[in-house]
Amino acid sequence: MYRIPILQMGQTLLVTIQVDMQDQMALALQDDLANKISRSGAKGVLIDISALEIVDSFVGRMLASISGISRILDATTVVVGMQPAVAITLVELGLSLEGVRTALNVERGMELLAHDRREKPLAP
Amino acid sequence: MYRIPILQMGQTLLVTIQVDMQDQMALALQDDLANKISRSGAKGVLIDISALEIVDSFVGRMLASISGISRILDATTVVVGMQPAVAITLVELGLSLEGVRTALNVERGMELLAHDRREKPLAP
Repeated sequence: MYRIPILQMGQTLLVTIQVDMQDQMALALQDDLANKISRSGAKGVLIDISALEIVDSFVGRMLASISGISRILDATTVVVGMQPAVAITLVELGLSLEGVRTALNVERGMELLAHDRREKPLAP
Repeated sequence: MYRIPILQMGQTLLVTIQVDMQDQMALALQDDLANKISRSGAKGVLIDISALEIVDSFVGRMLASISGISRILDATTVVVGMQPAVAITLVELGLSLEGVRTALNVERGMELLAHDRREKPLAP
């Protein structure tokens, strides 16, 4: 089966979604990401969706679920590169991407993750 | 038409190739990359092919041609993430990816680009 590659850059994992997601692919991605976070100890996950022209409720749920899984594994997820038209449609559809953080592009997403890491105090 | 997204991170552009390339797509990618290098002034191009299970002479030529275009625009191209089986097949087929630099993964590719930038003396 076709799997979406996960690139590691330091403490951050980067996923570029380029094709329309199907059930199996979304499940495989969640699985692969969870494994990779746990193996690598990554602190951040960047998901680039700049290639997507449609984000429906299925993709919205997938993004929320990846965010949730990452959070439990102590990593922050940031969705980047959303096209303006996609944002408009999401709001019109009443999909608010609850619990999903976003940034304009990969660079801003990286900054957000770096800022987050600096803010987080060490466990007492 | 489906276009492969190009992500910018500082002075580096990152392209993840996830699907089998066709003529039109390869031409569009070359075009987009050339434009993006010239607009952004990027110094490096990382092409991740970890998702590809087959690299034939068409893809090989595309990688060589992207390297050539980037070089003229004063950017270095590094192909990263090649699967071991792909490397074996390439050599067996007699395709040596002439003029294409490679690195094991994105992180090593980034290091190579950073190292290159430090080495290059400023124009006299």
